[in-house]
Amino acid sequence: MNFNKLLDNCKIYEAGKPIELVVRDYGVDTKDIIKLASNENPYGTSPKVVEKIASLSKNMFMYPDDSMYELKEALANKFKVQSENIIIGAGSDQVIDFLIKAKCSENSKMLMSKTTFAMYEIYGRQVGAQIIRTEDDEHNLAQFEELYKKEGADIIFLCLPNNPLGECIDTQEVYSFLSKVDKDTLVIVDGAYQEYASFKDKNKTINPSELIEKFPNVVYLGTFSKAYALGGMRVGYGIGQTNIIKTMYKLRPPFNITTLSLAAAIEALKDEAFVNECIALNFEEMKRYEEYVKEKGFDYIDSYTNFITIKFDSDYLSSEVAQKLLERGIIIRDLTGYGLNAIRITIGSKEQNTKVFKVLDEVLEDLKKVENL
Amino acid sequence: MNFNKLLDNCKIYEAGKPIELVVRDYGVDTKDIIKLASNENPYGTSPKVVEKIASLSKNMFMYPDDSMYELKEALANKFKVQSENIIIGAGSDQVIDFLIKAKCSENSKMLMSKTTFAMYEIYGRQVGAQIIRTEDDEHNLAQFEELYKKEGADIIFLCLPNNPLGECIDTQEVYSFLSKVDKDTLVIVDGAYQEYASFKDKNKTINPSELIEKFPNVVYLGTFSKAYALGGMRVGYGIGQTNIIKTMYKLRPPFNITTLSLAAAIEALKDEAFVNECIALNFEEMKRYEEYVKEKGFDYIDSYTNFITIKFDSDYLSSEVAQKLLERGIIIRDLTGYGLNAIRITIGSKEQNTKVFKVLDEVLEDLKKVENL
Repeated sequence: MNFNKLLDNCKIYEAGKPIELVVRDYGVDTKDIIKLASNENPYGTSPKVVEKIASLSKNMFMYPDDSMYELKEALANKFKVQSENIIIGAGSDQVIDFLIKAKCSENSKMLMSKTTFAMYEIYGRQVGAQIIRTEDDEHNLAQFEELYKKEGADIIFLCLPNNPLGECIDTQEVYSFLSKVDKDTLVIVDGAYQEYASFKDKNKTINPSELIEKFPNVVYLGTFSKAYALGGMRVGYGIGQTNIIKTMYKLRPPFNITTLSLAAAIEALKDEAFVNECIALNFEEMKRYEEYVKEKGFDYIDSYTNFITIKFDSDYLSSEVAQKLLERGIIIRDLTGYGLNAIRITIGSKEQNTKVFKVLDEVLEDLKKVENL
Repeated sequence: MNFNKLLDNCKIYEAGKPIELVVRDYGVDTKDIIKLASNENPYGTSPKVVEKIASLSKNMFMYPDDSMYELKEALANKFKVQSENIIIGAGSDQVIDFLIKAKCSENSKMLMSKTTFAMYEIYGRQVGAQIIRTEDDEHNLAQFEELYKKEGADIIFLCLPNNPLGECIDTQEVYSFLSKVDKDTLVIVDGAYQEYASFKDKNKTINPSELIEKFPNVVYLGTFSKAYALGGMRVGYGIGQTNIIKTMYKLRPPFNITTLSLAAAIEALKDEAFVNECIALNFEEMKRYEEYVKEKGFDYIDSYTNFITIKFDSDYLSSEVAQKLLERGIIIRDLTGYGLNAIRITIGSKEQNTKVFKVLDEVLEDLKKVENL
C-alpha cells in the first residue's frame, strides 16, 4: 500500500526505557530497579491527589467535561489570564503538535537549538517542515538571531529551561530576542521545567501573562508531568492570545485528556505546597550530583531542571556507561543520539541517588578495567 | 497571524453535553441529571477494574510502558493475531487520525455513509481531504460501490454498526463489497460497537483476524469506551497488517494513553463476564424503548448498539424535544445537525429509562399543547 510521502522522512521518538522492559530483558527484580530516565518526580504524586483519584476511579466509564471548565478556570486564576487564553493538551507535547499543524505545511521552516526536545522535530517532519538548528548545543540567542535573519522561520522554539541539557537563558535576554521577531512568526516558549528554573533563579522566571501581552505571537507551554508529578496522566497546556488558541481548537480532538487526568490536574493545583517541597528537595539532591561529577573529574551542565547532564571525557563512552547501568537496574538516558558523549540523569530521591553513585562507581571501575586489559 | 490555510475548512466536533454544564446552565441538581448522550456504559466500569485502578493511583507520576507490551499481548490473544498487528490509540478516534494522516494529503478522497461518525470528516478536513458521501443516511453498499467506481477513494469508512444511527450490515455483504475494492484503497472497519452487534446477531460479527487476512488493505478498529465501560480513559486500538501498523507508528506520539488507562484496559479484558452481562441488559432495556416508540407512533432504527435513534413525524421538532429534556436534566443527542428530525438516546439502566419515558411523556405533551394554542 502507498502512504503519504511525507512519512518517508518521519522519525520515531525513543522513550525512556520502562521498568517492565528491564524486568523482562535483564531479569532484575522490579523493586530493585531505579528509573531516572524520564524526569518523573521521584517523590511520587501528592498524597492528596492520589487519594482523590482513588475515590474517583468509579467515574472511568464517563467521558470528561470536554469544556475543561474547572481546570481552565484554575489555570487562568494561577497565571492571571483568561480561560480563553488556555488550551489543554494530552501533555504539552500535544499542544506542540497543534501549533505545528496550525502554522506549518510542507517546506515551512522551524528554528530550534541544536540539542533540544526531540518532539519538535518529530512533529515538524510529519507535516514536511524544514528543521533549522543552531550550531551550539545549548541555546545561543545570537545564533538564533543570525539564522532567523538569514533563513526566516514560521516557528521558533525556545525551551526554557532546555531539555535534555538543563541550561536556561535569562528572561530579559529572551525578551530582547523576541522584540526582534516578526509578528507573523510563531514563537513557542516551552516551560515544561519552568517551576524548577524559577525556584533556582528568579532571572529565569517567565510570567506567561506578561509574555503573551508583550509578544502576541508567543505561546507559553506548561505541563503537569514534571513538578506536578502527573507524568503518567498526560496533561499539559498552552497559554496564548485568543486568535492562536481558537485556531488550535480546530485541531484538538474531543476528550483529549482522560476523566481521571482532568480531576488529577485540578486537584494537583490545590497542593502547591507539595510541589514546592519536591522542588526544594530536587536542588538539595542536585548538589550531590554536582559534587560527585566534580570529584570524578567529569563536566556537567548547570541545570535549572530536575535532571543533570554529565559529559564524559574520552576515557568513557556514554553509551557503555548507560548500558552497564541498565544491566544493574538503573535506567538513565544516553545522549549519544544527540551527538554527545553524555548521559542525562533525573535527580532521584536521596536513597535512589545514593544507590546511583554506588553503582556508577562500580560501572566506571569496570569499564576502566576493561580498558586496561 | 497567518495559519495553515487547510484550517479554514475545519469543523469542530460537538461533544455530548457534560453533566457539569447542565448543572451550571439549568441549575439542575447533579444527582437528578441523566446523561444518555455519549453512549457510555450505564452500568459503570467493572468493580474489579475500579478497585484495581484505585489501588494503582499512586503510580500517576510515572509514564506508562510505552511499548504497551502487556495490553497488546492480551488483545493479540483475544483476537488471535500477533502483537505486531496492533496499535493502541487514545480512543479509536486517534487511530482514525493516524490512518487518515498516513494515507491522505490535500485532495485525497474519503468515501463514507451520509450519516456516520463525525470524526471521519473532521480529521479528513485537517489534511484537506475531499469527503464523498452516499445518498442514503444508513450504509448502502450499492451506493458505496457506485461512488467508488465513479470517484475512486483513498480511504473508505465502514462503521459496523453505524454511529449515530445504529444499523449494521451483514458481514457476508461487507466481504462481498471488500472483494471489489482495490488493494491500494485503505478500508477502515470501525467496530466501536461490534460487541453489541455480535451479541444480537452473529451475522453481523466481524472477526478481525479473518478480516485482515482476507483483505490486507483493511484495518479494524475497536474501543474500550463502550462495552468495556472505559469511555473516560481513552483507549482504543487498530488491528491490521504490519505494513500499515508500522506506518502508523511513525505518527503515534509517545505515551499516547495514560498509565492508569493502560492498566484499566488490561484489567477490563480480564472481566469479560461483566461486559457480557452489560450487553445482555442493554438489549433487554432496548426492547422497552422500541415498545415506547411504537406506542407513540414514531419510527426507530433497528439498533445493533447501546443506543437507539428515534425519528419524529412532522408534529415534533427533535431540537425542541432535546432542549426540553435538557432543561429537565435529561441529556440526549439531537440529530438535527445531521439533517434528521431525530434524537439518539443511549440505552440507560432500567431506572434511568423509566425516568426518560416519564419525562419524555411530559415533554411531548407540553410541546403538543404549545402547538394547539
